[in-house]
Amino acid sequence: MAGQAEIPADVVALCDYERHAAERMPAPLRAYVDGAGADGLTAQANLAAWQAIRLQGRVLADLRGADTGLRLLGLDLPHPLILAPVAFHGLAHAEAEHATALGAAATGSLMVVSTQSGLPLEDIAARAQGPLWFQLYMQPERGDTLSLVRRAEAAGCRALVVSVDAPVNGLRNMEQRAGFRLPEGIRAVNLDGMRPPQIRSEPGRAATFLGLMDAAPRWEDIAWLKSQTRLPLLLKGIMSAHDAERAVAVGVDGVIVSNHGGRALDTLPATAEALPVVARQVAGRIPVLCDGGIRRGTDALKALALGASAVLVGRPQIHALAVGGAAGVAHMLTILRAELEVAMALTGRRDLAGIDETVLWGS
Amino acid sequence: MAGQAEIPADVVALCDYERHAAERMPAPLRAYVDGAGADGLTAQANLAAWQAIRLQGRVLADLRGADTGLRLLGLDLPHPLILAPVAFHGLAHAEAEHATALGAAATGSLMVVSTQSGLPLEDIAARAQGPLWFQLYMQPERGDTLSLVRRAEAAGCRALVVSVDAPVNGLRNMEQRAGFRLPEGIRAVNLDGMRPPQIRSEPGRAATFLGLMDAAPRWEDIAWLKSQTRLPLLLKGIMSAHDAERAVAVGVDGVIVSNHGGRALDTLPATAEALPVVARQVAGRIPVLCDGGIRRGTDALKALALGASAVLVGRPQIHALAVGGAAGVAHMLTILRAELEVAMALTGRRDLAGIDETVLWGS
Amino acid sequence: MAGQAEIPADVVALCDYERHAAERMPAPLRAYVDGAGADGLTAQANLAAWQAIRLQGRVLADLRGADTGLRLLGLDLPHPLILAPVAFHGLAHAEAEHATALGAAATGSLMVVSTQSGLPLEDIAARAQGPLWFQLYMQPERGDTLSLVRRAEAAGCRALVVSVDAPVNGLRNMEQRAGFRLPEGIRAVNLDGMRPPQIRSEPGRAATFLGLMDAAPRWEDIAWLKSQTRLPLLLKGIMSAHDAERAVAVGVDGVIVSNHGGRALDTLPATAEALPVVARQVAGRIPVLCDGGIRRGTDALKALALGASAVLVGRPQIHALAVGGAAGVAHMLTILRAELEVAMALTGRRDLAGIDETVLWGS
Amino acid sequence: MAGQAEIPADVVALCDYERHAAERMPAPLRAYVDGAGADGLTAQANLAAWQAIRLQGRVLADLRGADTGLRLLGLDLPHPLILAPVAFHGLAHAEAEHATALGAAATGSLMVVSTQSGLPLEDIAARAQGPLWFQLYMQPERGDTLSLVRRAEAAGCRALVVSVDAPVNGLRNMEQRAGFRLPEGIRAVNLDGMRPPQIRSEPGRAATFLGLMDAAPRWEDIAWLKSQTRLPLLLKGIMSAHDAERAVAVGVDGVIVSNHGGRALDTLPATAEALPVVARQVAGRIPVLCDGGIRRGTDALKALALGASAVLVGRPQIHALAVGGAAGVAHMLTILRAELEVAMALTGRRDLAGIDETVLWGS
Repeated sequence: MAGQAEIPADVVALCDYERHAAERMPAPLRAYVDGAGADGLTAQANLAAWQAIRLQGRVLADLRGADTGLRLLGLDLPHPLILAPVAFHGLAHAEAEHATALGAAATGSLMVVSTQSGLPLEDIAARAQGPLWFQLYMQPERGDTLSLVRRAEAAGCRALVVSVDAPVNGLRNMEQRAGFRLPEGIRAVNLDGMRPPQIRSEPGRAATFLGLMDAAPRWEDIAWLKSQTRLPLLLKGIMSAHDAERAVAVGVDGVIVSNHGGRALDTLPATAEALPVVARQVAGRIPVLCDGGIRRGTDALKALALGASAVLVGRPQIHALAVGGAAGVAHMLTILRAELEVAMALTGRRDLAGIDETVLWGS
Repeated sequence: MAGQAEIPADVVALCDYERHAAERMPAPLRAYVDGAGADGLTAQANLAAWQAIRLQGRVLADLRGADTGLRLLGLDLPHPLILAPVAFHGLAHAEAEHATALGAAATGSLMVVSTQSGLPLEDIAARAQGPLWFQLYMQPERGDTLSLVRRAEAAGCRALVVSVDAPVNGLRNMEQRAGFRLPEGIRAVNLDGMRPPQIRSEPGRAATFLGLMDAAPRWEDIAWLKSQTRLPLLLKGIMSAHDAERAVAVGVDGVIVSNHGGRALDTLPATAEALPVVARQVAGRIPVLCDGGIRRGTDALKALALGASAVLVGRPQIHALAVGGAAGVAHMLTILRAELEVAMALTGRRDLAGIDETVLWGS
Repeated sequence: MAGQAEIPADVVALCDYERHAAERMPAPLRAYVDGAGADGLTAQANLAAWQAIRLQGRVLADLRGADTGLRLLGLDLPHPLILAPVAFHGLAHAEAEHATALGAAATGSLMVVSTQSGLPLEDIAARAQGPLWFQLYMQPERGDTLSLVRRAEAAGCRALVVSVDAPVNGLRNMEQRAGFRLPEGIRAVNLDGMRPPQIRSEPGRAATFLGLMDAAPRWEDIAWLKSQTRLPLLLKGIMSAHDAERAVAVGVDGVIVSNHGGRALDTLPATAEALPVVARQVAGRIPVLCDGGIRRGTDALKALALGASAVLVGRPQIHALAVGGAAGVAHMLTILRAELEVAMALTGRRDLAGIDETVLWGS
Repeated sequence: MAGQAEIPADVVALCDYERHAAERMPAPLRAYVDGAGADGLTAQANLAAWQAIRLQGRVLADLRGADTGLRLLGLDLPHPLILAPVAFHGLAHAEAEHATALGAAATGSLMVVSTQSGLPLEDIAARAQGPLWFQLYMQPERGDTLSLVRRAEAAGCRALVVSVDAPVNGLRNMEQRAGFRLPEGIRAVNLDGMRPPQIRSEPGRAATFLGLMDAAPRWEDIAWLKSQTRLPLLLKGIMSAHDAERAVAVGVDGVIVSNHGGRALDTLPATAEALPVVARQVAGRIPVLCDGGIRRGTDALKALALGASAVLVGRPQIHALAVGGAAGVAHMLTILRAELEVAMALTGRRDLAGIDETVLWGS
């Protein structure tokens, strides 16, 4: 595993990890990691939207004893920065998800393990020194889904995050153009032996309406899933008040505002735009989390001000992993937390509970 | 005719066809095909406006048995993607309009043959395996116009699309600068023997107000034309509620919101802006179609959400034709349909009837 | 004088003249001609504002016998395109103002001769075959001003255009950086022998508040001037409703909305923004004209729709003069008129009287 | 000290000093001087916001005897352009703060000496020929703060400017990436012997919430400070109505709207946006000043129109110092004053009292 000493001296922000990772990754891999759906408009919008939100500076506030801790679905966390589920960490580093989990634990960060991890979820959990959540892609067969749930429970995962925004893949044109393919030896091992959706064949037609959507999860499947586990259940990919309300109604324990990092449907709005809509609808009944384009402590602060309990970062963990392994992931999270503290200090907020809309300019 | 094998592997979206076509076409031809009126602001606006409209993602909807079919002016179509009338396909491919028609038929796509086709409309129709509409430029002499109508009827065209937005050519500065001229052997054969408008000569004056507009069609000519044929009649180039209302009043069967791909009057608004204005005025009395800048399935979905029954694509068919002939056209349409299905799936719509304004963010 | 044959074949719009002129003029001269005040923001805004206004296309209107003529302050003009006053045409062409006047006459265009013409106004007028107005900079001494007025009257000028927006020069940083100086033999000959303003000297201070503004014209001077001549009097440089009202009150015969082509005070709004404000205030009591960034027939149409009776073009005449002499100026004006006719045709307007706000999208 | 002769001939505006300084300064120093916090969005916004505000031109006003003088906190100043506190002038010029003070005095400009001056404040004051204010960073120990105050009083400073917007450093990523370090021999000599804040050590944690904010000044410290000195006290870094009201309540004599030139918290709004909010709240009870992105006389005029009594310029003094020493600073201030006069002349304002919101377009 790469040591701290290998992190270049000019890495002082998350964008520096992205720059260095871009130099180290072959073009097809870069297209996979940094690419997005179709024309990448939503991925760009995610970044731009946080930047466009402005903060209300405040001076001379009493910040003695200030702190970033929170309690979230039964976990006490020192800060609200979570590692989003990302497939195949082995693409970026030989130690794969183990390295990421080590970096997370070193900084007290919660990590969400992907269904599409390259290592078996049990292996990741066995070596992890910090808390894990498990991200679940529901399978065409309920038995397969249930098997994944039972394995996550047995491995000690603390919650299930069901991704609901990608029943079909987005148009991954960037990685298609670059000719990206998973290398030998990297595959979604957690899904070994599971039945894929049955697609009808028709010339000049895509799979979407020829079977794929017939096998896609529906609200009734979420209700069933909720009945099958005592783990907290979060839905990831909620972008509307309508779906947020249904999520509450079906009894899930949290929602994550996400557009899949712009990798699913292009021209969805930025999550910074959807977050306040969802948070207003949920109105505190369950926690609302958010990902998509979080690259600065100020971004995180803005998400909290718009109603998020915590935020998740995706691509930056792969960038940091590629550049510095576990040490890189830890450093990346340290930077982000340090930035969040500066942002809280200069807007006069002593804890997360004190972060509300008045943090934002024009509120 | 170019086979499927010749389509480059990195063609995964319509913009890829544009890129490859640009490499294959000489600069003057490129200026003709991809150029636009004056400074090209409207052509750019067409593209940008679709991109700027954002979608409302929806999750976990029941999409079993979803489908893109529609019934339009007596035709049953498997999808709402139509090939717009475009002049002189022979500029892009030796098989000219025959190749386009073959690609259209292979994907169940309706094609609109241009008055300015390089092949006689009868020849195109004779070999076409799918339905055709005929685009009509009204001529200074009613007898000439009627002759075109009768020929289209005899050839089996299923509707007439009268272009009303270009009584004078736009300022085609880009092709003028590049020195584009039609090559030997390509001309508007359908118009052979017809009388051009009579222009008065005056030094330092253009033809517009010296005869051209005297010969241009007026609303009364549309009424006359409607009385002369039993084919459905559509007006192409409607950009205002005022003209939409007159179109309904004069009894036409459909209107197409179009700014001629930005090739006519520069600084007209994007069709994405005019479409809802026209659709609101027409209020379902006749079908409203739309073209201009449709390059993605999401663009098509947005047009449908704004009131269009179907959309037309222009330049992309020439790009695809130049790159892959009939196979290219078929592939281009397959991509677009596949993208539309993904967009419907990720906004939770099972058929065209279910596509309304709630597909759009902020509705 | 350059003949028609010398105009490059790829000159098809006014921007082409600008491009070719830029290649022919030495950098300092270019900085003088195309430069603007300070950071050039207003000069850019002039161009961008016309482009940003969108037109409402209209189809199938009856345009038989359409025409662009107008009557303006006693003159019958075939079109509303006027040559704005510009200093020192000799910088661009050996025939100087004579060539410009010839190009104007060949196209029936009104020309406004500058106080700062390089040729004596009497010489220009003697050879001019079309109507002239005279642009007047008021002088510190009323006697000097009166002398200019009497000379313009005697030379047959048909109106006086008093520039009121530049009592001090704008910050011509671009030409200052480029080191522009008037070449030997070019000077404001019309002002020979006139008394300049008296400036007090103080270290580290500019002239503005040390005498220059003490000598600048005031409203009472306009009233006096109006009493001294029977020629129609226009004020050039009106950008506010306040000053427009005072102009009407003091009895002038017309106002020209102008920001001196962005050469005076930077960050003034575009004239396209000030025009409707001024026109609304004037409410038809006197003609309102407009210049600043008119480069297309659509720009002219928009100005007319916003309340202008006619428009003036400045820099393009110098570009055309540099490239093609009198023939260039005539060609440039022919292009602009032809574009205006196309724009009228495609918005369904048969004459200037029919051009109102409904020409504009969103009206 | 560099003489006037050394100023390059193409320096005609403040941006020219920036350009030339960039060529003369090594990259790390440039990153320090011209860099900003995090992604530099606020620094850019400062510049862009002044540019985006447009002016209402006015003509033919009576400006005889016009003047830019003002009275501010007991000082009669010939113009409202003040040198903002900037650290370590010795980085740009061997004569350091002495040179700046000489340039200020030559143009009648007030200078604010920084706590972080490289020369002892007493030395600067002893040689200064014009009025000085002292910028104060409050220290963890009140005794240390008081010592600075007494020294400023003894040195004859005419007011204290307490910076309250940077209890922690912003994320100076640009200078971090460039590896900037203070050279040997340059340090904050005024702080020699003072006690730094006590930081607790914790792995993977930043200092912000581990002691730094515990030592930061609070409103009660301002009240205490006010009670300790008879000098006028200004708070620098006020960006909200809330803090402006508290500043008035605590009895300070003025506030400076500032975001530390974008060097503290990134994505704070531009000062041009915060200024009217603060000025409206203060409502004339105490003077409001403003800095951040002032580069043109028009910028200064706009700030005055939005409620500022005077404006401060920061980085331009370092640029001018690097290029021309004291003469450069004087020249820079002369340019800015000359530009302000032109802007007043062309908006028809004879003195600062006459500058109100009607200077702004759209008011």
